[in-house]
Amino acid sequence: MDLFQSFTKHWKQAFPQFQQDNSLLLLAVSGGLDSVVMTHLLAEMGFPCYVLHVNFQLRGAESERDENFVRSLAKATSMEIFVERFDTLDYAKLKGMGIQEAARTLRYHWFEEKRKECQLQFPDKKVLLLTAHHANDNVETVLINFFRGTGIQGLRGITPFQKDRYLVRPLLPFKKEDLIGFAKIKKLAFVEDSSNGSNKYTRNFLRNQILPQLEENFPQVKDNLLQNIDRMNEVAEIYQLAIADRLGGLMEWKGQECQVPILKLKKTDQLNTVIWELIRPFGFTVQQIPELIKLMEAPNGSCLYSSTHQIIRNRKWLLIATIQPQENSFVVIESSDISIEFAGGLLNCKTITEPFTLDANSLKVMVDAKQLSFPLLLRKPKSGDYFYPLGMQKKKKLNRFFIDQKLSKIQKEAVWILESNQRIIWVIGMRIDNRFKCEPATSTALQLSFVPKGT
Amino acid sequence: MDLFQSFTKHWKQAFPQFQQDNSLLLLAVSGGLDSVVMTHLLAEMGFPCYVLHVNFQLRGAESERDENFVRSLAKATSMEIFVERFDTLDYAKLKGMGIQEAARTLRYHWFEEKRKECQLQFPDKKVLLLTAHHANDNVETVLINFFRGTGIQGLRGITPFQKDRYLVRPLLPFKKEDLIGFAKIKKLAFVEDSSNGSNKYTRNFLRNQILPQLEENFPQVKDNLLQNIDRMNEVAEIYQLAIADRLGGLMEWKGQECQVPILKLKKTDQLNTVIWELIRPFGFTVQQIPELIKLMEAPNGSCLYSSTHQIIRNRKWLLIATIQPQENSFVVIESSDISIEFAGGLLNCKTITEPFTLDANSLKVMVDAKQLSFPLLLRKPKSGDYFYPLGMQKKKKLNRFFIDQKLSKIQKEAVWILESNQRIIWVIGMRIDNRFKCEPATSTALQLSFVPKGT
Repeated sequence: MDLFQSFTKHWKQAFPQFQQDNSLLLLAVSGGLDSVVMTHLLAEMGFPCYVLHVNFQLRGAESERDENFVRSLAKATSMEIFVERFDTLDYAKLKGMGIQEAARTLRYHWFEEKRKECQLQFPDKKVLLLTAHHANDNVETVLINFFRGTGIQGLRGITPFQKDRYLVRPLLPFKKEDLIGFAKIKKLAFVEDSSNGSNKYTRNFLRNQILPQLEENFPQVKDNLLQNIDRMNEVAEIYQLAIADRLGGLMEWKGQECQVPILKLKKTDQLNTVIWELIRPFGFTVQQIPELIKLMEAPNGSCLYSSTHQIIRNRKWLLIATIQPQENSFVVIESSDISIEFAGGLLNCKTITEPFTLDANSLKVMVDAKQLSFPLLLRKPKSGDYFYPLGMQKKKKLNRFFIDQKLSKIQKEAVWILESNQRIIWVIGMRIDNRFKCEPATSTALQLSFVPKGT
Repeated sequence: MDLFQSFTKHWKQAFPQFQQDNSLLLLAVSGGLDSVVMTHLLAEMGFPCYVLHVNFQLRGAESERDENFVRSLAKATSMEIFVERFDTLDYAKLKGMGIQEAARTLRYHWFEEKRKECQLQFPDKKVLLLTAHHANDNVETVLINFFRGTGIQGLRGITPFQKDRYLVRPLLPFKKEDLIGFAKIKKLAFVEDSSNGSNKYTRNFLRNQILPQLEENFPQVKDNLLQNIDRMNEVAEIYQLAIADRLGGLMEWKGQECQVPILKLKKTDQLNTVIWELIRPFGFTVQQIPELIKLMEAPNGSCLYSSTHQIIRNRKWLLIATIQPQENSFVVIESSDISIEFAGGLLNCKTITEPFTLDANSLKVMVDAKQLSFPLLLRKPKSGDYFYPLGMQKKKKLNRFFIDQKLSKIQKEAVWILESNQRIIWVIGMRIDNRFKCEPATSTALQLSFVPKGT
């Protein structure tokens, strides 16, 4: 079977949902052998395609040559072409990235932009991005992952179809030699990339130095590694289902917050792996596994952070929650304000005169209006805060109050304070200050009601 | 922490059940660095140890040197020593094995023999075999498996404790450099093995040629691979539990025979992997996965063989059963025999004279004695066999009879025949021949009762 037949067969098996009449394919074309072969195969199949080419302007005249070559390829295959030029070096410097990383970021960002544009233009079509990664790339990727250290995910190789990115890699089952053979028969021209970026260097090292030596001792090594990839993909699926099951029994969601019972977690088998799968989705690293194991024994309130999440030990639980971005934590309330929307929710103020009924609850309180001096201040607690909890004649540190109330760190961080002239009126949603309570003599009260965010 | 401390700590963590006062350790000692270090570490810990040394007589004077060296090491550490000499070359030729494989077979066979002897001698002790495999061996093993092609099992590396073989590898967490450091400090002598067997060659190639190059590009590659091993061990455990669960829902055991419903198997996700785990324990190879997939569509009665098992398509089922070794399939029965034990079970003969009651069932029948001519023959069916099933005047091919009875291939292969003068008397356990049935005129009958094997 020639490459075109194998390719057609593979497409039908792997991507039956994408047909010539319902799809628009955006081909990422560098002008190298792989992307040129991909372009010809899809043109021959009769798919509507656009060519996307990025000129990174990293290789002077060679970059221009490549751009011109890809333009002529698009013309020859009657495909529309979009070209984008980037000052890759500038961008890399600006972002403090390596050149390869900068190029990849710019490339995929632009690809996704173009894809969305096309999708808007052709809402009835499935608009997909295609890259020309092939079996040899896959073998190299798996070797790199393996040597750098990886779990089972890294041994699955390159994903043939990434649904969330509308990204298809149709050449993945085919080897470089198959592509070369096709290019020869079809007399296809292509350009050679002389670049030697850092990641490319590692690939070249494996491709040109390591794999040929391995093949002398393990003649089928490439095929063996490709078969490993197939096996690992199935094993990983079975593993993922099992892990989802295990985690389901460990994680209790309360709104946005997740609770993990420490005792149950400690008793779990394959602890390192379960912890890894538990913390991974929240942006934690593999190096934090031992730290989480320590956290289970650490003092109450101890914390572990990723860039987006925190895990807090709260008595018998580990609480996983997003790190709240620092909001504007001061809101000034004038006497005329009746409804104040703030980061913590909504605060409604209503002046009430006698006779009034005290239908107070933790979210709706009444304070003696004559004790208030406007403007009031809505703010987050700060260290050193104290107040006189309703019913007490002695002042109490706010932090002590939180401890007595058994607030978790997360709950504590969500608390807001209402104050008047540097005196706390209300620890919102929890307790008013004794100094502001309505007395028998109170003739005017301010009714405060709080609607927490997300309720 | 020096090696002795780390080793002591590791032993206590990994093998807490084996203590100096309840264990006897048999150390496999070649005289090389690794086994010498292991010997000294365990001597220093105060374990009762015996030294086992195998002289494969493959390296002439060097083999003798090694044996002498190990004898003196045993003396120096006050350990009893057992030495065994093998004609490894002869054995390899005889068995058609490679030298390395022959040496391994001989070695582990003898080790196990010695272990059992010692266990008999010291029934109160836990008698264990110890080998000096270390972290570098583990890295090399995993690389070999990976390059040769493997599933997740092959990425788990060397097993630190193989319970069924009473085999412990206490040096597995330690690197070669740790062992070298210990030997230097303690000024330990050891011998160098100049052999270059095929497996050793692959190891030397990885150790001396590939790993140093990899380390230039992936400085931590050995540590990364060791961490991969740890991860894969946990992943594999989780995977194994999930697979056991999946297989439990697919395999129905009927005695020694296992039935797998084809429809259910076809619908299973991760089919290749599930099939592999299904057939692997029965000695099938990974190459037979596609054959099993074909078998599900193949004509009824089609078969797939491993060296020990067969899988037969039987209508909606795949039957997995052991291949019956070809037993002596002819047994001669004299008129004086009353109880015949044969491969299929037990046949009892009893002569009965009038008056008799016909309490026949499929396992206990009566035939007319005057129709019989001794000796009778007990045998397996052969092609072309026919008989006159009870109640029929026409002869019937035995094979046709089996089909009508809806016998599976396995059931068919278990059937025995009793014949007299080349006429079938009884398809044992199924039907007697019409020609031998008791008639009203019958005055003497032979009562035959059959007890199938394993009941």
